[in-house]
Amino acid sequence: MNTRRDFLKKITASTLALPVLGSLPMANLIANHPNAPQLRVAFCGLGSYARRVADAMQSCTNAKVVGAISGTPSKLEDWSKKYGFPKENCYSYDSFDSIKDNPNIDAVYVTTPNSLHHPNTIQAAKAGKHVICEKPMSVNVREAEEMIAACQTANVKLLIGYRLHFEPFTRELIRMRTEGELGKMLFVNTTMGFKIGDPTQWRLNKALAGGGAMMDVGIYAINGARYATGEDPVWVTAQEQKTDAVKFKEVDETITWQMGFPSGLVANCATTYNFNNFDRLYAAGSKDVFEMSPAFGYGPLKAKTSKGEVNQPVVTHQTYQMEGMANCILQNAPHPNCDGLEGLKDMQIIEAIYKSVAKQGKKILVRY
Amino acid sequence: MNTRRDFLKKITASTLALPVLGSLPMANLIANHPNAPQLRVAFCGLGSYARRVADAMQSCTNAKVVGAISGTPSKLEDWSKKYGFPKENCYSYDSFDSIKDNPNIDAVYVTTPNSLHHPNTIQAAKAGKHVICEKPMSVNVREAEEMIAACQTANVKLLIGYRLHFEPFTRELIRMRTEGELGKMLFVNTTMGFKIGDPTQWRLNKALAGGGAMMDVGIYAINGARYATGEDPVWVTAQEQKTDAVKFKEVDETITWQMGFPSGLVANCATTYNFNNFDRLYAAGSKDVFEMSPAFGYGPLKAKTSKGEVNQPVVTHQTYQMEGMANCILQNAPHPNCDGLEGLKDMQIIEAIYKSVAKQGKKILVRY
Repeated sequence: MNTRRDFLKKITASTLALPVLGSLPMANLIANHPNAPQLRVAFCGLGSYARRVADAMQSCTNAKVVGAISGTPSKLEDWSKKYGFPKENCYSYDSFDSIKDNPNIDAVYVTTPNSLHHPNTIQAAKAGKHVICEKPMSVNVREAEEMIAACQTANVKLLIGYRLHFEPFTRELIRMRTEGELGKMLFVNTTMGFKIGDPTQWRLNKALAGGGAMMDVGIYAINGARYATGEDPVWVTAQEQKTDAVKFKEVDETITWQMGFPSGLVANCATTYNFNNFDRLYAAGSKDVFEMSPAFGYGPLKAKTSKGEVNQPVVTHQTYQMEGMANCILQNAPHPNCDGLEGLKDMQIIEAIYKSVAKQGKKILVRY
Repeated sequence: MNTRRDFLKKITASTLALPVLGSLPMANLIANHPNAPQLRVAFCGLGSYARRVADAMQSCTNAKVVGAISGTPSKLEDWSKKYGFPKENCYSYDSFDSIKDNPNIDAVYVTTPNSLHHPNTIQAAKAGKHVICEKPMSVNVREAEEMIAACQTANVKLLIGYRLHFEPFTRELIRMRTEGELGKMLFVNTTMGFKIGDPTQWRLNKALAGGGAMMDVGIYAINGARYATGEDPVWVTAQEQKTDAVKFKEVDETITWQMGFPSGLVANCATTYNFNNFDRLYAAGSKDVFEMSPAFGYGPLKAKTSKGEVNQPVVTHQTYQMEGMANCILQNAPHPNCDGLEGLKDMQIIEAIYKSVAKQGKKILVRY
């Protein structure tokens, strides 16, 4: 009988390059080994997004929901029942540290409010668990750096929840750009936002969210411009508007910004918490234009080029994300688009954008 | 038998409010009076756009191509044959002034390269002819002011070729915004551009064009943001990129810019001469979002709101434009969205944008 380790060796040898970096068709991402090793994941913070990912993981072959950390005992009970894991894998924030003694949990997915990503990630890393952390990885650059350092010190992986790097339409954009089918990239326009509801939610509370639309969904427009170009911006300019100073007393409502890239390309971007139908990526190259709308939401996404509609399978993003991330961790392989250093870059860009807003749109160089 | 003057009096009394300001369904724009007075138009500058407008005018009931001014005798001959007007209505630039003695020409449509709009408009006005001038009305603010003054002094109308103010989808946007169906306007994103061909054309020559993409098609994004909001911007910031310094040695290639409006709304805009499929208007209000793509080209245009596709007739823009503008002139009625003062505002905004580009994106207040 094969041991888990033997199996891992075998699958690593045969499929190492397959599912991690996504250079192959998406179908390959979903491994189909009934006895494949599984990444056993505990969720930290049991809000609606955690539930969405956990539900999506029910279709993963190599990742499983096996535990939870929450300040609300009733939620732990619900989760334990729904996903069928034992009470021993349930933790409060007080008992979180003792997760280090639990050999049945490999990784912690941090889905708490933004400002808690930093302490929760460091706590999980210190307990020797791999960390998948929702975006934005932190609320500022310093915290992101500390999180990366903590995971390096603990010798655990840190991946940021950039689900779109596993999504077929997004991967097709990256493939076309990488393989030269779009030509030299010339321009990008990315916009992402929505009209936020309940004014009492943590997303509008600066202490918990760290910022507003920019921090929460503007990051899609930043990351999108980066994967549409394959470059990192060297400068930003930004302009804020606030039409509802009560609801958005603490955090940003709508920001427009521009990012200048080393090639000379400029991306023109915007984010909001104040209106809907604002979810689009436009990337113009010298040979073709790739346009996605919606581009960043949970789907179904749609894309077109000059040749017409782009055909890609419509998938549950989080299933593909978790399958891919589990492979990264199980195979000890890097994911250059989703690791802590990539998350840090977005935080460095966000800080530069906020600085430009504070300086009335002054051009700010991004410090990496 | 009715005289022309009697007829004009009659039609004025019965339909004055109908076709000019466009508060009624577009079908009313096309008058249907077989004996209606006609605006007799001579074209100044016989390039491809003049031909497009002249062809479109063949479907107008109240506007007729009756003459031409050109430096190329063979073009005058072609036009005279094609549109069936006499040699007496053909002028060279040397004989242009004598058009004042021709009682069979009411108006001159100036379709020369941008930098000639100023002398050609003033020359036509001094000859006592109404002027319709293509956009951009001039290459700078000073010239636009002189053109307005010259037409006022000569007591002739000056209209700028903003065809979209007569176009059904655009008018539907303006109607929805004006009647409150979009709610309070919150954000606008307008983009317009294309990949320009022949590197020797006048549009790439600064002396003739006055500027590049911004002057030629960026003006649509400016004007679009203005009619989508019903406001005029008070400040701009702008960023230029140039990826081909040879082709775009003299004029701007790609510019992104932002416009701040009195209500606090910011419009995020871009224009280019370097890639295609870049023709879109997005206008978010507190109640609904109006999205047009394409929004500024010759059509067919398409638009949607949260309720789905917007249904409007697909028309030849220039037919509707000329029918409407002829009504303005024949009825001595204003068109507040297409007159010289409106054209001047776009020039004032363009000057501010170029100034911001020159100052590395500094916020520039627009001086009206």
